[in-house]
Amino acid sequence: MQDPPSEVGCALDEIDTPALILDLDAFDRNVAKMASYAAFAGVGLRAHAKTHKSSAVARRQIAAGAVGQCVQKVGEAEALVSGGIRDVLVSNQVVAATKLDRLAALASQAQIGLCFDDPEQVIAASRAASRAGVVINGLVEIDVGMARCGVPPGRAGADLAKRIADAPGLRFEGLQAYHGRAQHLPAAPEREAAIRGAIRAVQQTQEALAAAGLSASTVSGAGTGTFRIEAESGVYTELQAGSYAFMDLEYAGISGPDGTPFAEFEHSLFVLSAVISVAGAGWCVVDAGLKSFSGEKGPPRVHGREGYEFLGMSDEHGKIAMLDTADPPRLGDKVMLIPGHCDPTINLHDWYVGVRSGVVHELWRIDARGASR
Amino acid sequence: MQDPPSEVGCALDEIDTPALILDLDAFDRNVAKMASYAAFAGVGLRAHAKTHKSSAVARRQIAAGAVGQCVQKVGEAEALVSGGIRDVLVSNQVVAATKLDRLAALASQAQIGLCFDDPEQVIAASRAASRAGVVINGLVEIDVGMARCGVPPGRAGADLAKRIADAPGLRFEGLQAYHGRAQHLPAAPEREAAIRGAIRAVQQTQEALAAAGLSASTVSGAGTGTFRIEAESGVYTELQAGSYAFMDLEYAGISGPDGTPFAEFEHSLFVLSAVISVAGAGWCVVDAGLKSFSGEKGPPRVHGREGYEFLGMSDEHGKIAMLDTADPPRLGDKVMLIPGHCDPTINLHDWYVGVRSGVVHELWRIDARGASR
Repeated sequence: MQDPPSEVGCALDEIDTPALILDLDAFDRNVAKMASYAAFAGVGLRAHAKTHKSSAVARRQIAAGAVGQCVQKVGEAEALVSGGIRDVLVSNQVVAATKLDRLAALASQAQIGLCFDDPEQVIAASRAASRAGVVINGLVEIDVGMARCGVPPGRAGADLAKRIADAPGLRFEGLQAYHGRAQHLPAAPEREAAIRGAIRAVQQTQEALAAAGLSASTVSGAGTGTFRIEAESGVYTELQAGSYAFMDLEYAGISGPDGTPFAEFEHSLFVLSAVISVAGAGWCVVDAGLKSFSGEKGPPRVHGREGYEFLGMSDEHGKIAMLDTADPPRLGDKVMLIPGHCDPTINLHDWYVGVRSGVVHELWRIDARGASR
Repeated sequence: MQDPPSEVGCALDEIDTPALILDLDAFDRNVAKMASYAAFAGVGLRAHAKTHKSSAVARRQIAAGAVGQCVQKVGEAEALVSGGIRDVLVSNQVVAATKLDRLAALASQAQIGLCFDDPEQVIAASRAASRAGVVINGLVEIDVGMARCGVPPGRAGADLAKRIADAPGLRFEGLQAYHGRAQHLPAAPEREAAIRGAIRAVQQTQEALAAAGLSASTVSGAGTGTFRIEAESGVYTELQAGSYAFMDLEYAGISGPDGTPFAEFEHSLFVLSAVISVAGAGWCVVDAGLKSFSGEKGPPRVHGREGYEFLGMSDEHGKIAMLDTADPPRLGDKVMLIPGHCDPTINLHDWYVGVRSGVVHELWRIDARGASR
């Protein structure tokens, strides 16, 4: 793990670069907005820690009203439980016995949920929970249109729920019904249509559950791009949004309901870089590249400097063009960049540098960085 | 930092997933081939540690004949020197005084080089070296066609060399003349044309240096896609290749001189993943996604399983389609994946799991992971 790039009390300009910057005022507003929206809609906010990878962020989301966290990996759950989080759902399938034993060990300290889409996973998790003498809450993942994990809605979901309900060490809790592909569909009506389909898939599965004498006390899903639709469906009980706390260019690129840019949340996450070369004719080079932000959703965008356009990046270089009208860059100038995709960008860094009014107020460890197992 | 995903002596199938796997036989052959080629051509091999991020790999490259290492960041240099490497070139510009002080501190333990493309950088580095009472070797970076960092070839290079030669604490050593953009040009004749241009740029600068009473004892550059051309130019003295030790899909996608696929080196680097879901009709899902390989050069490729095609990935999921003729996957099956781009993929992991004949032989820490400052 790298040392923090700054100390508390430093000015923004004194932070070593590249550094992952969190604008704490914007972050607080995003966290409060989603929490109060969930309270208003009468659903739980189970914020997704795959995005933030940090028990420090999780604690703030929970302090603001979140009911718990979800994760994709057992290693993320371990980091959160170790950081004091007491309600974690693994919104994913886990197969390996060694991983299930690690997860079962957490269930003696925290409420732990796990998703299933195959009877074999149920048998393996039941064994691990029984060995550890704990109970794991089981959710049936149904494929609500994402075509990734999940059983088909309806009867198949009820059949698997029955196996969970009957398995020692497991308790059937409900349905995982996340539609990831819907989150970034560019137009709001497309997102709405996709989630309407997800809602029907949940309802169809609930009917099959009722016929089998079961019911889902939890229906978990939704993300930053669609959370209002799930929340107001009367069917979902939990929201799994993660990016809302930070925003990124991918979410900034979708449209809101009236066709204007999606503006539910503010950009709170940046990479601070520094100009290391001004030798080029019409461009400068900063010290942040593919090892400071993930590039699969395109390059970052320059924030707060008129006439600067990010052109491209290599491992440790970012190339930025300047319009003729732009202030010329000087060596050492700091440049704030908005990442294309927040989740894998955060996973590159070891620290959030939390800034308020241009001064470093907090240093939060990204304690689940790299926790992919 | 995460714990290693395996212990020495485990079988490949027992390694926890996802894990970064190094096929040690293929790695050894790649390392030996480049080292013996450099020896044959009479140039030094200064392998690039931005790719491997590990003093363990650096030590093996040097044991095989490499003259030293190059890096992009002071943090990488610190990890290497701490791991026993005694000759490190920062093939990049460094501006911040705090970073230059850290670099100067290393120069009391190792031979340290640094690149320049601006007189301001020379002044700052000279101050840091003088403060620390050390000498840093200075290379003038010339823009040989990459349009990133570097002064124009010719007179501008000689002018900056003169400033380095005159600066206390700095010694003018030579030229940095790396053409990064050339490395992945698809056709060998395109790469050759680009490097011919780079060679002319070096020669033009050498003439200007001679006119100023200076000479470049080192001309450093070249990468895995073009190293033979620079090595046989009679102008370059050092090769900065890095990917050669591992290969990746990006290099596998270029052509060799006869138009057939580039086959100088073998794939030695893989991500081992495990099947976590087989609920889909015609696809399965593995537990490795954007946090196990960088996606900006496209998805990984399935290795060693006929009829399996990697379709796409999200943060922690990889979706793989199976042809009707393929063996159906079972939950827990291990799937080896070849990354699209080795450098940023390695930077996501904390350990290389070195495997020989299907058994874990070595665990190497990726001690410069995240060392971007």
